[in-house]
Amino acid sequence: MKSYLDCIPCFFEQALRAGRIATDDEQLQKRVLDELGAILSDISLESTPPKTGELIYRMVREITGNPDPYRELKHENTRQALARYPSLKRTIEKSNDSLLTAIRIAIAGNVIDFGPNATFDIDTAIKESLEMDFAICDYSAFKNYLAKAEQILYIGDNAGETVFDRLLIEQMNKPVTYIVREKPVINDATAEDAVQAGIDKVATIVSSGTEAPGTILSTCSLEFREMLDSAEFVVAKGQGNYEGLSNEDHSIFFLLKAKCQIIANDLGVTKGDIVLKWINIET
Amino acid sequence: MKSYLDCIPCFFEQALRAGRIATDDEQLQKRVLDELGAILSDISLESTPPKTGELIYRMVREITGNPDPYRELKHENTRQALARYPSLKRTIEKSNDSLLTAIRIAIAGNVIDFGPNATFDIDTAIKESLEMDFAICDYSAFKNYLAKAEQILYIGDNAGETVFDRLLIEQMNKPVTYIVREKPVINDATAEDAVQAGIDKVATIVSSGTEAPGTILSTCSLEFREMLDSAEFVVAKGQGNYEGLSNEDHSIFFLLKAKCQIIANDLGVTKGDIVLKWINIET
Repeated sequence: MKSYLDCIPCFFEQALRAGRIATDDEQLQKRVLDELGAILSDISLESTPPKTGELIYRMVREITGNPDPYRELKHENTRQALARYPSLKRTIEKSNDSLLTAIRIAIAGNVIDFGPNATFDIDTAIKESLEMDFAICDYSAFKNYLAKAEQILYIGDNAGETVFDRLLIEQMNKPVTYIVREKPVINDATAEDAVQAGIDKVATIVSSGTEAPGTILSTCSLEFREMLDSAEFVVAKGQGNYEGLSNEDHSIFFLLKAKCQIIANDLGVTKGDIVLKWINIET
Repeated sequence: MKSYLDCIPCFFEQALRAGRIATDDEQLQKRVLDELGAILSDISLESTPPKTGELIYRMVREITGNPDPYRELKHENTRQALARYPSLKRTIEKSNDSLLTAIRIAIAGNVIDFGPNATFDIDTAIKESLEMDFAICDYSAFKNYLAKAEQILYIGDNAGETVFDRLLIEQMNKPVTYIVREKPVINDATAEDAVQAGIDKVATIVSSGTEAPGTILSTCSLEFREMLDSAEFVVAKGQGNYEGLSNEDHSIFFLLKAKCQIIANDLGVTKGDIVLKWINIET
């Protein structure tokens, strides 16, 4: 997905939010915004939002000297998600359609995101995600691919959301490679975060090589790109992965909650909607 | 009022909104944002928001070649306000406290503002403003000053809101000098807009000399500054005038609706609250 002009004020909001989490020094927070302003003319609208996100969060790290501002928040979110794991497991097991319920729960976990929004309530998100209609639901195709797949490539998104992914992975019951970010960026899941969520018990954890808050192939490792090229069945979570991969030549199932108006517009849905969208661009 | 870091993303939102109203050319809209980015490090937080607003809207005019992007919107808002004039006049006349009701209505008109917000509903604002409690209400002082004043200096804000100001001016029933902006900026009222609202029938219209979306004394004419210095009773409408004048050495009654969180914080009120605040800084 390309960037829109509306993304630009949001980039500044995100930079400010991250700057404030990284440091209490208002002058350094202002410098983050100033430096983003200084490079704004170099940011093309043809570039994807997470590509710009990579620049922003690198700036925040360098200017504030804080390599992982969201570290504590990520750990806390994962702890909170793990506390909900047993009851969500029961909800899935008792459901008439356990796979679809697990998908709904994995999407609910996608609200744990400090990028576009400052606040969220995970219990409200779970309730909504279990009850609301999908705005896009390519579930039949998902089931067909799952039935045939011998391996699943599952591209994770945020720390804490990882616990909800684990529930879906357990329900899919096939060998899974779980993709994480190479380095900390916002609250995106790294290998450390995935292990805290217990993903290592249900999947092989591999880094995509990127430090962008999304999957930008040009910044990913050759290993990951080869994995993606040869994967039979790819599941990608969240906005950042959608933004980075929606125009790439791959068959991918995107699971996300449309948390910003721009992505909602791009998908043709309403902000707040839940989405299971299959994009299959023939190479 | 100084600027806050939170104002910076909002400056970009405002620049984008104004750019879109001024031109359909997305490249020019992007250039407005780029040029704002380029000067961001020169914008001090010690500067007031309307001082930066002046820079932004000048940029929009210069880059898009549109000298008055909000012209049609201003005329339409004034027409809509004039259509409500007769019934609002009756509401004031029938009220137990006609002066306070006229103040409430003048504050309701303050929602007609394309600066911090993109949308508003004037009828909802009137209803709310007639019914809700004031968050700050220095009404006794207002009445005392009004009773003693031989002249009133009334600093207007937006086009359309002018009609609501006219109702208050008629109710105050003293000689009034009504201050407008020198040149078009956002939807702020110029002399032309004040005349369309019929202010010329109830007051003497004088420009402050500024083209900022607020009253920044350093950008105002000597004539206006002398008027302000010698004024016995000053009424200033809206956020832009509050932002520009709240730290100046004058006795001023501010009438406004707190439309952004930052101003609400500065005033110690809740966003959406209505305010009649007297600031009396002794020189």
